[in-house]
Amino acid sequence: MAHLPPLEFTGNAIRILDQTRLPHAEARLELRDLDAVAAAITDMRVRGAPLIGATAACGVALALRERADDATLAHALAVLGATRPTAVNLHWALARMARALDPLPAGERAEAAAREAAAIIAEDAQMNARIGQHGLGMLRTLAEAGHGRVNVMTHCNAGWLATLEHGTALSPIYAAHAEGIDVHVWVSETRPRNQGLLTAWELAASGVPLTLVADNAAGLLMARGQVDVVITGADRVAANGDSANKIGTYLKALAAADNGLPFYIAAPMSTVDFGCPDGGAIPIEDRAGAEVREVAGRDADGRPATVRIAPDDLPVANPAFDVTPARLITGIITEHGICAPSALHDLPGAER
Amino acid sequence: MAHLPPLEFTGNAIRILDQTRLPHAEARLELRDLDAVAAAITDMRVRGAPLIGATAACGVALALRERADDATLAHALAVLGATRPTAVNLHWALARMARALDPLPAGERAEAAAREAAAIIAEDAQMNARIGQHGLGMLRTLAEAGHGRVNVMTHCNAGWLATLEHGTALSPIYAAHAEGIDVHVWVSETRPRNQGLLTAWELAASGVPLTLVADNAAGLLMARGQVDVVITGADRVAANGDSANKIGTYLKALAAADNGLPFYIAAPMSTVDFGCPDGGAIPIEDRAGAEVREVAGRDADGRPATVRIAPDDLPVANPAFDVTPARLITGIITEHGICAPSALHDLPGAER
Repeated sequence: MAHLPPLEFTGNAIRILDQTRLPHAEARLELRDLDAVAAAITDMRVRGAPLIGATAACGVALALRERADDATLAHALAVLGATRPTAVNLHWALARMARALDPLPAGERAEAAAREAAAIIAEDAQMNARIGQHGLGMLRTLAEAGHGRVNVMTHCNAGWLATLEHGTALSPIYAAHAEGIDVHVWVSETRPRNQGLLTAWELAASGVPLTLVADNAAGLLMARGQVDVVITGADRVAANGDSANKIGTYLKALAAADNGLPFYIAAPMSTVDFGCPDGGAIPIEDRAGAEVREVAGRDADGRPATVRIAPDDLPVANPAFDVTPARLITGIITEHGICAPSALHDLPGAER
Repeated sequence: MAHLPPLEFTGNAIRILDQTRLPHAEARLELRDLDAVAAAITDMRVRGAPLIGATAACGVALALRERADDATLAHALAVLGATRPTAVNLHWALARMARALDPLPAGERAEAAAREAAAIIAEDAQMNARIGQHGLGMLRTLAEAGHGRVNVMTHCNAGWLATLEHGTALSPIYAAHAEGIDVHVWVSETRPRNQGLLTAWELAASGVPLTLVADNAAGLLMARGQVDVVITGADRVAANGDSANKIGTYLKALAAADNGLPFYIAAPMSTVDFGCPDGGAIPIEDRAGAEVREVAGRDADGRPATVRIAPDDLPVANPAFDVTPARLITGIITEHGICAPSALHDLPGAER
């Protein structure tokens, strides 16, 4: 790992990179209690479905340090579970914590919670490494079939910042770059919160060639033949393969389909919600209009600054996710391999 | 007209609203010579295909005030013709000026040029009023077929700011609002230059209900049934109906098609380029990366301000237009009525 980890769990606290300030400022925050962890998730100081899940697991562990009775555990699970509605890894991690801790006497829970949170963190990095290897095979095939350079388009940030290590959508890209495949990434800025800039920051730090574009440019670039494949992460994959991801993903999937390009979702099995039959059942988070009205960057002197592009009295809607129908998805890259969206049920782990 | 005109031609100068500063500041600029007019078009201080055409016509008239020999005329046409490549109204207006002025002796050209520019300005407002009436019929039908409220999505700004009066895409909306139809507009911000904010500013000033959204939100809103129809302007319509418009239009057309929604282009015949067989022949302007790297707005004290969201050394691409294939276009709303993209050749004016 050549970079600071996005999440460190010390037992008494968790340290995070404040992603609302990246890439304009690198600030670390220490979170010492349940409420601080819940607020950090709600405010997107930590973000990315896998990282949200791991952070919530750590939040449970912090909450149980002093008291670990049933009421304290239930309260922690409820508070964290209400932070964000769409990313299912949150609920997956909390359910896993509940399964591990519920049967234990209160006196054993604090230590067990810390152990389970650490296991979620360690496993996430391993899952993502495997996602990278499975995606690498696909990128290698594209490189061999084409003229060498593979142009990948992604959306939002599904890199190491959104996970514990490697990332999901970016994991195959890092693996391909490490293997010497000439991979170039089209990074769309991902309004309203501009998480594409996190992706640009990550990729540039690793020496992966990239070009930043407005979200609107995706269709033209694909129509012109400047994109070979689209890979994004997901916040929740329904049982039928419909996938919720950052708002705008569906538009990229439509453009890929219209231009005969493969479109992949990269996500661990913890992102698949087998209790959710299809995309229509995935709750879509509406976030504050201020996220559309304000843009963060740096001022002329290089200091972090924000401009307001629209007045407070202008009506704004800010849905944070959209659903890409399974019919537009070429494959889902999981830790177990690449599968068709309709074949998720056949994968190991599908029975949980 | 309840607003300041976006362009006034006084004979000795043209006065424009500086659209690069709207809606954060209302600044008027006076342009007194050819170079100032050309720079204002290149820098998008005036923008919108019809307004660019009219401004260029005024620029020719200004250039001929002192000398009107063949060389001066040819120079003016060449300088203005090189300002922006995609909007064909520019070339249409310059060709019209050339046709009117070429046969005349130098001594008569200055006055004739002023007259022709004024005619272009007057005709534009009339064309747009007719576009509004033709589009109104379509919106009325939607209002009667639905539950009363008609939700229109648009992209970029094709309102009165982009023309001389009424606008193109917004003209039917203004006409419907004036008739008492309950019309609500989804305004996408239109990165990188946020011309959606111009649309929001226009609509709000006229009392038309609107909601500002990130460009990325278009697909979700359509999939949820929150959009009844998409109407955009165009910068150039090819003979087969393929239409170039602000980058991101193609993505909205794809989403409309995927959700069974009508997608209309509103444009006068001066936007149709019968010399251009299809979209592949339309030149797409690449603009400076600074437009992606910087966002204009207001600071905390309400003063116009800019933030930089990406450093100068981050590679950026900034194509300004994309092409929506005719197969995704329900109809083209012209001053002669609404026609299928394949039927442009049958319209009056197609013979030119």
